[in-house]
Amino acid sequence: MNPDHFDASDLRVIAFDVFGTVVDWHSGIAAEVELALPGVDGASFALAWRAGYQPAMKSVMERIAAGEGGFTLLDELHLSMLEQVLRDFGAAERLDAAGKRHLSRAWHRLPAWPDAVEGLTRLKAKFTICTLSNGNLGLLTEMAKRAGLPWDCVLSAEVFKAYKPDPRTYLGVAGVFDATPGQVMLAAAHHDDLAAARVCGLKTAYIERPWEHGRAQPKDVSPKPENSLHARDIVELAELLGC
Amino acid sequence: MNPDHFDASDLRVIAFDVFGTVVDWHSGIAAEVELALPGVDGASFALAWRAGYQPAMKSVMERIAAGEGGFTLLDELHLSMLEQVLRDFGAAERLDAAGKRHLSRAWHRLPAWPDAVEGLTRLKAKFTICTLSNGNLGLLTEMAKRAGLPWDCVLSAEVFKAYKPDPRTYLGVAGVFDATPGQVMLAAAHHDDLAAARVCGLKTAYIERPWEHGRAQPKDVSPKPENSLHARDIVELAELLGC
Repeated sequence: MNPDHFDASDLRVIAFDVFGTVVDWHSGIAAEVELALPGVDGASFALAWRAGYQPAMKSVMERIAAGEGGFTLLDELHLSMLEQVLRDFGAAERLDAAGKRHLSRAWHRLPAWPDAVEGLTRLKAKFTICTLSNGNLGLLTEMAKRAGLPWDCVLSAEVFKAYKPDPRTYLGVAGVFDATPGQVMLAAAHHDDLAAARVCGLKTAYIERPWEHGRAQPKDVSPKPENSLHARDIVELAELLGC
Repeated sequence: MNPDHFDASDLRVIAFDVFGTVVDWHSGIAAEVELALPGVDGASFALAWRAGYQPAMKSVMERIAAGEGGFTLLDELHLSMLEQVLRDFGAAERLDAAGKRHLSRAWHRLPAWPDAVEGLTRLKAKFTICTLSNGNLGLLTEMAKRAGLPWDCVLSAEVFKAYKPDPRTYLGVAGVFDATPGQVMLAAAHHDDLAAARVCGLKTAYIERPWEHGRAQPKDVSPKPENSLHARDIVELAELLGC
């Protein structure tokens, strides 16, 4: 959508949100939970775990602002959120420390959406493609290695010491590549992430992921006119950009 | 060399020095200089430019330690060093600002040594492979894209806000991958870089690059027994590690 109104001639870099946009966290987490904890409803567990994500990051940024702590890697937040969700599901005693650690790293092992590798490979021929995720570098690197995601560069909140939607992350990508904000596009399945990038001057592409929260909870993937592009998936994004 | 004495079973990550180890800066810079400045001796110019590298980084770290400045990207240092070398070669007036900027980015366009892509590709099947260079992320990413270097992750002094041989860089790689220092190996063509990594507990692999400074200045590439491995090139490193 919108390709008639969008001039890509100046575009150099496409930064991708990762969880939900490139990989299917809901299916991946649900499957690992059911493997580790037979009898537990993996789909509900995945939603509960993910629900802790924004509050956990907000709490870290508030502690940093108050001078009471440093930046925390998402791996550590995933582990502490997991402890809470295990308690909420009455399953805290069912995993030992090694089991909890292993399950907390299930976010490294998420499956790519079926279009992701082809779409990214096509985009890579014409643009610099990178991650821009709140996931830490080690998480994103292991995920890319397992799923075959062909990033030119793995960028993360860890590099900028701030989580999205902090402007330092979006402007940080432009800085890394010595580009103007308008030469960078954020591709994401989340309108709030795109809105924050747009305020910084980035181009934006919305990627439809109707099943991000599972088949039982279809997500509204209606276009918003503020985005530069709107694509069914990453292969369609490549087509809209002439790749 | 030394493969009988080295147990790689615990090794997870191989971090590569880049300039000289993976890419041939001397030939690459000499060729671009002679293209931009016909009549100038490219080989001598390349050596003079590279000679400014260590003092420039030292000066940045001293300014940071004195609270008088922030971390500086190597792109910026390359440009300011270039201005000096152009003056030394009596060529300051021969390039305008855009020409100087373009030539300063020749470090993004360096050719890989002939064994690099094959060796890295083989190592990548078994280990996580990343850069650990004083070059900035944008430089290393553009270089990898042009030369086909298949990094799992691009790491740089820019991420750790310190240049090698600062321990924060070597230990930073271990931190990113949640590894012990002993699970990480630095591969480099420079014994001083390897020695600093070894103090931090990393494994070390020396890569022979006898022509790093050009055919006119062969480099002593004798092994040192302190290194875990010694390899003729990156393909041989892959062979020593069973890849």
